[in-house]
Amino acid sequence: MSDHPVSGLEPPYYTVVFTSLRTEDQEGYADTAARMEELVREVPGFLGYESARTPGGIGITVGYFKDEEAIAAWRADAEHQGAMRRGRADWYERYSVHVGRVERSYGFARG
Amino acid sequence: MSDHPVSGLEPPYYTVVFTSLRTEDQEGYADTAARMEELVREVPGFLGYESARTPGGIGITVGYFKDEEAIAAWRADAEHQGAMRRGRADWYERYSVHVGRVERSYGFARG
Repeated sequence: MSDHPVSGLEPPYYTVVFTSLRTEDQEGYADTAARMEELVREVPGFLGYESARTPGGIGITVGYFKDEEAIAAWRADAEHQGAMRRGRADWYERYSVHVGRVERSYGFARG
Repeated sequence: MSDHPVSGLEPPYYTVVFTSLRTEDQEGYADTAARMEELVREVPGFLGYESARTPGGIGITVGYFKDEEAIAAWRADAEHQGAMRRGRADWYERYSVHVGRVERSYGFARG
């Protein structure tokens, strides 16, 4: 029942926190999101992600990356840049991105 | 339509990312969560939080703090410690906590 290291994530690493509120226009969103998930897995230094969304409310996605280089590579991806432009044009009412260097993490799992 | 600084959050600051999966036993959870929200606002250096939860899936809460001292003060709060114990005993199947120092953030808002 005590806290333990987070499996697969050895500090230091980075969290990219993306919080967003969507518009009513979600045409094409799901396909693009699925494609982005496929693409980001190819980025060297991408360590995983988690995502949650309250129906009718905000969504939070946390990407885990090994270093700044991995984040920069993902940001520079041409297809990702196109998706971000489309997101600003159509899908997002607002969003925030917070890039943090993690020096400490821990977890708990039952049983 | 271009990115802007995140209102009220001037780097450096800290994100505390809490991702969790709940158990079926949520008795008392809502009251405790409401009380924790009240309490954390009294912590000097607490800058806000955002939370999302996919029904039947994971929840992600991101707390924003001015510095490590603010995080330590919140962690040391006796009532919060009691809530964390209860969370491990009853409410959470698993959780992870990632404490990150934010050097860079940006946002977008429509219109």
